[in-house]
Amino acid sequence: MGACQSFREMCDRTKNTNIRLSLPAVCVIWQTAMIILFGIFIRYNEESDIRWAEHKKLKNITSDIENDFYFRYPSFQDVHVMIFVGFGFLMTFLKRYSFGGVGFSFLLASFGLQWALLMQGWFHHLVDGKILIGVENLINADFCVAGCLIAYGALLGKVSPVQLMVLTLFGVTLFAVEEYIILNLIHARDAGGSMVIHTFGAYYGLSISWMLYRPNLEQSSSLQRSVYHSDVFAMIGTLYLWMFWPSFNSAIADHGDGQHRAAINTYLCLAATVLTTFAISSLFQKHGKLDMVHIQNSTLAGGVAVGTAAEFMLMPYGALIVGFCCGVVSTLGYIYLTPFLEKYLKIQDTCGIHNLHAMPGVIGGIVGAISAAAASESVYGHEGLVNMFKLVPAVQGGHQAGGLCVALCFGIGGGIIVGAILRLPIWGDPADDNCFDDEAYWEVPEEEESSLQILQYNNHFRNKDVVESNFTVEQDGRTRS
Amino acid sequence: MGACQSFREMCDRTKNTNIRLSLPAVCVIWQTAMIILFGIFIRYNEESDIRWAEHKKLKNITSDIENDFYFRYPSFQDVHVMIFVGFGFLMTFLKRYSFGGVGFSFLLASFGLQWALLMQGWFHHLVDGKILIGVENLINADFCVAGCLIAYGALLGKVSPVQLMVLTLFGVTLFAVEEYIILNLIHARDAGGSMVIHTFGAYYGLSISWMLYRPNLEQSSSLQRSVYHSDVFAMIGTLYLWMFWPSFNSAIADHGDGQHRAAINTYLCLAATVLTTFAISSLFQKHGKLDMVHIQNSTLAGGVAVGTAAEFMLMPYGALIVGFCCGVVSTLGYIYLTPFLEKYLKIQDTCGIHNLHAMPGVIGGIVGAISAAAASESVYGHEGLVNMFKLVPAVQGGHQAGGLCVALCFGIGGGIIVGAILRLPIWGDPADDNCFDDEAYWEVPEEEESSLQILQYNNHFRNKDVVESNFTVEQDGRTRS
Amino acid sequence: MGACQSFREMCDRTKNTNIRLSLPAVCVIWQTAMIILFGIFIRYNEESDIRWAEHKKLKNITSDIENDFYFRYPSFQDVHVMIFVGFGFLMTFLKRYSFGGVGFSFLLASFGLQWALLMQGWFHHLVDGKILIGVENLINADFCVAGCLIAYGALLGKVSPVQLMVLTLFGVTLFAVEEYIILNLIHARDAGGSMVIHTFGAYYGLSISWMLYRPNLEQSSSLQRSVYHSDVFAMIGTLYLWMFWPSFNSAIADHGDGQHRAAINTYLCLAATVLTTFAISSLFQKHGKLDMVHIQNSTLAGGVAVGTAAEFMLMPYGALIVGFCCGVVSTLGYIYLTPFLEKYLKIQDTCGIHNLHAMPGVIGGIVGAISAAAASESVYGHEGLVNMFKLVPAVQGGHQAGGLCVALCFGIGGGIIVGAILRLPIWGDPADDNCFDDEAYWEVPEEEESSLQILQYNNHFRNKDVVESNFTVEQDGRTRS
Repeated sequence: MGACQSFREMCDRTKNTNIRLSLPAVCVIWQTAMIILFGIFIRYNEESDIRWAEHKKLKNITSDIENDFYFRYPSFQDVHVMIFVGFGFLMTFLKRYSFGGVGFSFLLASFGLQWALLMQGWFHHLVDGKILIGVENLINADFCVAGCLIAYGALLGKVSPVQLMVLTLFGVTLFAVEEYIILNLIHARDAGGSMVIHTFGAYYGLSISWMLYRPNLEQSSSLQRSVYHSDVFAMIGTLYLWMFWPSFNSAIADHGDGQHRAAINTYLCLAATVLTTFAISSLFQKHGKLDMVHIQNSTLAGGVAVGTAAEFMLMPYGALIVGFCCGVVSTLGYIYLTPFLEKYLKIQDTCGIHNLHAMPGVIGGIVGAISAAAASESVYGHEGLVNMFKLVPAVQGGHQAGGLCVALCFGIGGGIIVGAILRLPIWGDPADDNCFDDEAYWEVPEEEESSLQILQYNNHFRNKDVVESNFTVEQDGRTRS
Repeated sequence: MGACQSFREMCDRTKNTNIRLSLPAVCVIWQTAMIILFGIFIRYNEESDIRWAEHKKLKNITSDIENDFYFRYPSFQDVHVMIFVGFGFLMTFLKRYSFGGVGFSFLLASFGLQWALLMQGWFHHLVDGKILIGVENLINADFCVAGCLIAYGALLGKVSPVQLMVLTLFGVTLFAVEEYIILNLIHARDAGGSMVIHTFGAYYGLSISWMLYRPNLEQSSSLQRSVYHSDVFAMIGTLYLWMFWPSFNSAIADHGDGQHRAAINTYLCLAATVLTTFAISSLFQKHGKLDMVHIQNSTLAGGVAVGTAAEFMLMPYGALIVGFCCGVVSTLGYIYLTPFLEKYLKIQDTCGIHNLHAMPGVIGGIVGAISAAAASESVYGHEGLVNMFKLVPAVQGGHQAGGLCVALCFGIGGGIIVGAILRLPIWGDPADDNCFDDEAYWEVPEEEESSLQILQYNNHFRNKDVVESNFTVEQDGRTRS
Repeated sequence: MGACQSFREMCDRTKNTNIRLSLPAVCVIWQTAMIILFGIFIRYNEESDIRWAEHKKLKNITSDIENDFYFRYPSFQDVHVMIFVGFGFLMTFLKRYSFGGVGFSFLLASFGLQWALLMQGWFHHLVDGKILIGVENLINADFCVAGCLIAYGALLGKVSPVQLMVLTLFGVTLFAVEEYIILNLIHARDAGGSMVIHTFGAYYGLSISWMLYRPNLEQSSSLQRSVYHSDVFAMIGTLYLWMFWPSFNSAIADHGDGQHRAAINTYLCLAATVLTTFAISSLFQKHGKLDMVHIQNSTLAGGVAVGTAAEFMLMPYGALIVGFCCGVVSTLGYIYLTPFLEKYLKIQDTCGIHNLHAMPGVIGGIVGAISAAAASESVYGHEGLVNMFKLVPAVQGGHQAGGLCVALCFGIGGGIIVGAILRLPIWGDPADDNCFDDEAYWEVPEEEESSLQILQYNNHFRNKDVVESNFTVEQDGRTRS
């Protein structure tokens, strides 16, 4: 008993989770930097500026409804819900890390979207030294943040909020560069971000997790589980991601048929994924019982995998086929691959992002390359082919594949470098036996009265004060019934 | 004790809930069939096809914003949320069937929407042997699924997921036929589906429940209850249904004033329902205490009942009157009718869909018939009257009433047939003492540590190992406080 | 023990929470009054009336998409979610008042929006004795309700639903008058309602709370706390308010750039608030642990404070500065001001609306006044300046400040009067030791089986019936594991 306690104290000494100075410092300084950089660089674009009225006249636009706001704002709000409620609640599944799951996502995303507006603006929207922003920039900033949230999924419960801020700073920076290379230099198309967002984000997170490998993580294994209600909370995240994924994949697609088609393809693909996920989950468990982990995660794999090709003429049955395969691959990944990765490759992946984002993201890149290479004038029409792809289909297919490689390299390379930085002993990360526990960073409310009172009562009883404890018990009975 | 156990074992032998082969088989085979049928039949329509650019020129459409996507996509996403989060979470109210409530809805709906696209397509959208789909088809598919989810409400906790798949297969088929008869042959109007969706779906489910009557269901009555937090989860479902119902009733109404008016009428009607639901719930309970079951369900009855007439010139006060009545009728139904149905008609209705969908649906059909029959040129204008109704108002009223009868017949008749099929002992449904329990089909996480530890500690103590148990208790105190 | 019980009984006698007659009476009579008044006054406007087709021709409108419905309906639905899920779930944080938090908000809002349509209609939209309504009226009605829900936040757990209905009746009335004075007589602008909604609503609620001061409220202090899962439920409310606030502030802004800019400013402002809230929360707590109360509430302060100026040319960095300050001020308010208000000013503010709405609302009014006064033709252009402000900038700034004063006066004055009315002993409010407890007004489901069974088992054991209790324990072990 004494030895145990002294060991714990030693751990507490070497691993100090007190972030009372580091977190406020990072938040305040970085936010101040954002204000300064926004002051220098960021302005409204012609559609959100008060001079829109003049702009309309110049461009002979007859109605305010032509403002891009009305094309994209509903999709933007859906994406916004995916980022904060979708990702946030998907990460509440652990029994004692729900605060950290939803709370740190909230922090990370709020910082990340500001930094993304700047980084993406410098690469894509710099006009006369100013970044002119509108609703499409907000969507892209949310997309960029999604990459970092995916990475957080691998690290959930094992890192401090300060580490997450650092992860986001570098993650957004890397994202903006790889996005620029993939979309603007290689001319790959990736409206739903299978490569740019999911492949990059997942391998970025997995590489960091590999660098931060914790050999004694089983010390907190009792907390790396869900309870009944935390699983229901996580389903809120799952369903919002699932329902709004058509908006995610169509949000920045071309006006008109582009957005329309991307939404239909994603809707269908995700529906097929649900059926195969249920099938595999039941088939590979003893007694055929379904596993909530699969339902919460693998049902979403189709949305990832159809990201690149959603705006293409994938055809409804093509979308279903992609979804069918992803449900199978992703669920099998949870059953066989996640334990393998942890045991042999030393990658601890709390949320199983390898199955939800990495593999489906790569599949999405490949599907995109194949469907681009297979594009024909009979399906697309001449005009359609020119508008959709800047290159000849076969060449476009190659460039799509090239884009996938870039995303992989940036994810793995960037993750290793950032992981090395995060290993420095200054970030306030928890000890191995303190992982997956909100106590480390949050004021956690006391337990439900009932359990506590029973405990108190029991201790009472143990001391043989049977008579005095009478009052407690009866009170208890009264307030409960 | 021994007798009890052997009885349980016998039950387990006769009722095998192991769906390890049947569920995967159904999911994989049916999904494969969907892929093949989609490959043969389903293509993009002119607004979601890449040839939209050519189509625009042909039709002299000046802007992409005229694409139906921008008229209907925000409503579609709201409807989508209603189907998956609304219905799904409304069914999480049981203490130990939240996984089944939200999970099986997810499965059922994901299959149903694919099958609905085909069935509705064959009846409504077949052009040269192809079904051309756009956002309106997605909305209609979601509507069709709503009918099956309503039916699930009566059966919640008492059927296996395989049975739900069968229920959906037949439910969608029947739905498409009755919808075709009501809308295309009888020329009734039903934008919000009071008849087509709610009346049909509710009587379909109730008839199935009647066929599957379980005389010994009280054996699992301890589980047919809510706990505090499961009631709060269910309120998520309630509120999303309530808030987005204006989108449901306006989603496929006519562009412009039609959608606008349907949304206003539904908004008002639902507000009135809330007040009378609270009134009746308090008035008929002892001590005036409100019952969560009423608040979760009866507050929604107005949305059902205003479905048919929402796009008509019902007038704002008309919408309020409909809402007023539905709150009263539906809440009284929960108090008096549900027990009556179970005791005398042998209909076990877990969620009370008779009060939430069946009665309000019939009221909605009647309100629709009356307001169509009462339509006058002074209110509608000549042009309006012609656009809204293909027939003279009095005749239209009769046809609306006819539509209601068709929905009733299909619901009851179809339910009896499908119920007979579901009685076959091959579907893996639970035994009477195993109902309302997620253990049957799900890997359920262990209980909260606190309770378990107390239990362990107690057992410890019972064995008089007072001294050895010291350690456990102290640890407990530490980790808890 | 006997004395205690008789004291409780006395309390129960003086404070009767039985609302079996009063609540139904209020609901039914007021709803009936609404129907009559709607019958007399409320009709569809030209965009929701069936004569829209004629109206289009008259006004040379070429497309249905020009209907205001398509400009505002997505924002309306977001606002609707904020009112019912946002405010409702934010108030579920108490361990035993989640039903009351979400349920009474639902009731209050459903009545309030009807009464608001009438009150605001009489002041703003009366044409030939009729109020013509469209989607903008629905948004304004929801806004008006928001004021009353804010006031409820100060009173949460301490008032009866009948009192809330009275609060709403007067609150909406006062709101409509102050709104008319501020917007139409003083010509201040306030698209996001920093003054009209938040300042008014918060001081209205705080004044009522001051009038209803309960000196012995610490008797129910054990219930004025959260538990783990109730904090997660509250995060649902927080996130929906946070995510959809851009829609709130842009919902009734000018078409085109006005809505676009308001959304961008709010998005940025809220992101900055999150960072400073986390910073201050960690900095001022012992061990740097974050407090869920701050994360749930202070992260929203930026949305309040940017309400007035969101549609102005505040500039992106301006929005960030406002957010930065509000996160700091609001979080410090929770740490220092709320205890001060309770101790010295006798204002008991359950949700801390002084920190979330009152102070940020006043800041918002001031920011609005300054940015209006500082408006220049170089930024706005001549046309923009004329469209945005009816007056010269400097004068406009003064009028904005005047608007703020009107909101404050109406809030405090109205709150004192309504508070006096609510002190009458006829409204069924709970006794001091009965506050924050759903038992008073709701049928609360029994506790989780586990705790109860343990309790029963313990009582058993206490009676030394060790042998007989064997059965219970083993059963227990079986059903649990």
